[in-house]
Amino acid sequence: MSSTRHFSIALRRARIPRPRCAITPITVRVPSARAFSVSSTVQATKEIKYTTNAYPDLHRNPTFAEITAQDVTFFKELLGSQSAVIDGVTTDATDDIEPFNSDWMRKYRGHTKLVLKPQSTAELSKVLQYCNERKLAVVPQGGNTGLVGGGVPVFDEIVINTARLNKIHSFDDASGVLVADAGVILEVADQYLAERNHLFPLDLGAKGSCHIGGNVSTNAGGLRLLRYGSLHGSVLGLEAVLPDGTVVDSLSTLRKNNTGYDLKQLFIGSEGTIGIITKIAIQCPSRPKAVNVAYFGLESYDQVRAAFKEAKGQLSEILSAFELMDGRSQKLVSESTGNKCPLEGEYPFYCLVETSGSNAEHDMEKLETFLEHIMGEGIVADGVLAQDETQFQSIWRWREGITEALSHLGGTYKYDVSIPLPELYQLVEDCKARLTKMGFVGDDDSFPVRAVVGYGHMGDSNLHLNIAVRQYNKEVEKAIEPWVYEWIQKRNGSISAEHGLGLAKKEFIGYSQNDTMVKLMKQLKGLYDPNGIMNPYKYI
Amino acid sequence: MSSTRHFSIALRRARIPRPRCAITPITVRVPSARAFSVSSTVQATKEIKYTTNAYPDLHRNPTFAEITAQDVTFFKELLGSQSAVIDGVTTDATDDIEPFNSDWMRKYRGHTKLVLKPQSTAELSKVLQYCNERKLAVVPQGGNTGLVGGGVPVFDEIVINTARLNKIHSFDDASGVLVADAGVILEVADQYLAERNHLFPLDLGAKGSCHIGGNVSTNAGGLRLLRYGSLHGSVLGLEAVLPDGTVVDSLSTLRKNNTGYDLKQLFIGSEGTIGIITKIAIQCPSRPKAVNVAYFGLESYDQVRAAFKEAKGQLSEILSAFELMDGRSQKLVSESTGNKCPLEGEYPFYCLVETSGSNAEHDMEKLETFLEHIMGEGIVADGVLAQDETQFQSIWRWREGITEALSHLGGTYKYDVSIPLPELYQLVEDCKARLTKMGFVGDDDSFPVRAVVGYGHMGDSNLHLNIAVRQYNKEVEKAIEPWVYEWIQKRNGSISAEHGLGLAKKEFIGYSQNDTMVKLMKQLKGLYDPNGIMNPYKYI
Repeated sequence: MSSTRHFSIALRRARIPRPRCAITPITVRVPSARAFSVSSTVQATKEIKYTTNAYPDLHRNPTFAEITAQDVTFFKELLGSQSAVIDGVTTDATDDIEPFNSDWMRKYRGHTKLVLKPQSTAELSKVLQYCNERKLAVVPQGGNTGLVGGGVPVFDEIVINTARLNKIHSFDDASGVLVADAGVILEVADQYLAERNHLFPLDLGAKGSCHIGGNVSTNAGGLRLLRYGSLHGSVLGLEAVLPDGTVVDSLSTLRKNNTGYDLKQLFIGSEGTIGIITKIAIQCPSRPKAVNVAYFGLESYDQVRAAFKEAKGQLSEILSAFELMDGRSQKLVSESTGNKCPLEGEYPFYCLVETSGSNAEHDMEKLETFLEHIMGEGIVADGVLAQDETQFQSIWRWREGITEALSHLGGTYKYDVSIPLPELYQLVEDCKARLTKMGFVGDDDSFPVRAVVGYGHMGDSNLHLNIAVRQYNKEVEKAIEPWVYEWIQKRNGSISAEHGLGLAKKEFIGYSQNDTMVKLMKQLKGLYDPNGIMNPYKYI
Repeated sequence: MSSTRHFSIALRRARIPRPRCAITPITVRVPSARAFSVSSTVQATKEIKYTTNAYPDLHRNPTFAEITAQDVTFFKELLGSQSAVIDGVTTDATDDIEPFNSDWMRKYRGHTKLVLKPQSTAELSKVLQYCNERKLAVVPQGGNTGLVGGGVPVFDEIVINTARLNKIHSFDDASGVLVADAGVILEVADQYLAERNHLFPLDLGAKGSCHIGGNVSTNAGGLRLLRYGSLHGSVLGLEAVLPDGTVVDSLSTLRKNNTGYDLKQLFIGSEGTIGIITKIAIQCPSRPKAVNVAYFGLESYDQVRAAFKEAKGQLSEILSAFELMDGRSQKLVSESTGNKCPLEGEYPFYCLVETSGSNAEHDMEKLETFLEHIMGEGIVADGVLAQDETQFQSIWRWREGITEALSHLGGTYKYDVSIPLPELYQLVEDCKARLTKMGFVGDDDSFPVRAVVGYGHMGDSNLHLNIAVRQYNKEVEKAIEPWVYEWIQKRNGSISAEHGLGLAKKEFIGYSQNDTMVKLMKQLKGLYDPNGIMNPYKYI
């Protein structure tokens, strides 16, 4: 199919002038996983500050026991394999332990001396039962790709890593239900499903490292929630271990099962504070036969909203992503990768629109009609459409490369928020104006702030406000917080859309949840984890 | 577009002989709500047996207080309006109270003498606080369309009906989020959304009577879960009142909000046992521009499975329902309505396939290809496709009319179960064989069982096994239960897919949940409702 022919027909039908930059439509197959890797963004040059230094008001809970050599012996005997225990208590294993103590953003660093990697639910159950009886605090950890310090210790909490719980148990082609261990890497699960013509109903930048158990326990949202919905809908069942070692076997593979309280929901998004997820059963959609992606430049946020409204109406059931990136974010990606922006001019806003469907011709016709309309109406100033898989990947990198581009600049204050659409981008404008007025923003090294950028999942009203700093700076932090949370609270937004609370947002939950809700949450935490050993100092 | 032309082109392409009965495709608009009404099925001829007689082992919980004249005075003063209190305690209001005491299936009947209809969350909060302090048991009730006796009292529990909590509060066109009171009737909500080009993401036979709060509190599944997913995914927020009067305000309208435990999930499907839902915020999809429905006859259950597999693969993102009806169920509808089956011959199985999409031409092309394929392959023996809205309604009545047709026969033992697809229909065959062998099934009045029928939501592995009896019969019941539950347990199915537990399934939860899960559920019930006043004698 010739792209020119397709687009000229579309234009003739609508009797509108040809746009400045031709959009060349072509259908591409579903791409293999993108190349983004979390580990590549870690800079090894500078020591990471201990969380206990960054948060001097945090004190170790004195009711927790200290790990002894006897404890280590117990765990070594229990878990058997040498690779299952990284012991910095009785040996000097600092280098081996460090990757488990600190996060990839290099923002949080704990003091643990023990990492455990159980290989079965039974092992994990015994580990937790022992820890609970001994009052040894623990931190559940998956791929350690979190953004709020939820997956690394603060003091000497034992890290329980799920990397060795990594089996895919079953996939049923008729129902699309996958059953897999918590430690399976998201990309591995998706590749497995790709070979079976299905799709994991979640996709995010860290897919090459993150664990599906971590995704579920943090209720990850990602790039295609717009299309495939939340994990609260797609996770059909799960198995988890409570702090006292009780195995919660709620691993139903049924789409419908109304037999009592849906307790599994409590583990989705509870960030390892009431138990550790060991297995999940998840409903996976058929892999789309055709996927297209387009990338636009737009002159204003009002036009971005107009484009989204049209995409929702016209692309409807095939719309699988609508992402927003501001001009500054795209410049940073260009500087970081050395790639030239696919559009000629410069625009204050860019959007990425993806469709996924079962019929390439139909999808292309819908997309053409949409493109024709938004260009004809002057909603979009310029745009390109991927012509093959390489271009598909390359366009997606303009969206997915932002996190990595920012990580090269120094530190980043990351705010992942939900705001009703009309004011979504206003937060970035207001924040930039505030920090500029306070004299923090500038191009040379005397200014702490390099850039204030905004991007995110427009389709979910989910904005990522990122403030790139030359180094983490208390004064800048004070200028942003709690101002940013107050701003969001006034609009009934959420101070954490998809990243969770962890340590970073724990203090601020009151901006998005009322006192009654917080009280009920604490009551629930007390019910399941009376000794408070699960991921302490964080969440609520 | 001419239906004949379309289909003959399709046939020519596939080089297959013309089928016996031409399928005439045409696109119809989304229909207005169907005519099914729950109240019309109630037979007024015979007295309904008290539940306390049917379940002689149930005893009134002696810790509950008895309602006094002072209680009635308190409620009358609190709720103000005369229509808010139906008082059978100090007056003889038996006739007014009876509809609240018994269910529409005429299977359950309680002894309540007091019905309260609060008009605001604040009123409901005061009602519950008072009841909790006085230890007066209550039954939350919506449209009273339940199938498991969950919405009517057993003894003298006060009925708290949500009929006067019936305001639609807001709808946001950009996000598709509807905020409405619990007592809004599903059909009213859907009509409101239809005028705004959106759709309530749930549809079921009782839509003309059921309340959306009841739908959420029972986690209703219905006809289009296959397409729009479970309420655990689409309900974004809710407001509820706990037994002690605490108002749980979790009425977020955000698609993404990861700030703490998702407590609202506990109210979805908890059948009014830990609180009463007062408002919901729900994500509603755009109303499809084109909807088509086809109806087939098939020679075997293997062919039904093959047809479903093809529908899933070929109709993919536009498939919105795949319903299964056995031959006997369709004969009953024919007898009950006097309508002739749209197909010439008689078949052991029938399927209804619905598509919903944004482009009528594309949808029709996909549907034609699908029809061509399944007829060409001999999967389907005969079929028709709705040509206009009247036909659309009429075809759907062959599915939705089953419940009503059965209700004319006397009593019905209803089993709503999830079973993995390969054995889904086997349960009906096995049940029929068992009851026939035991001498229960026959055409004349000497046999207690008139018919064993199976139908349901094939797309969700959800079967409705219905055993129509001339009158409820303990011997038949003993022949079915626990045999049917054991059968399901062996296949890791669910003994209640979408109808819930209520009183009918309370005893049998152990067939679908293990002891640990039941223990955890009881623990949760104890946490939120320590006096046990909420919907007692039911659920877990």
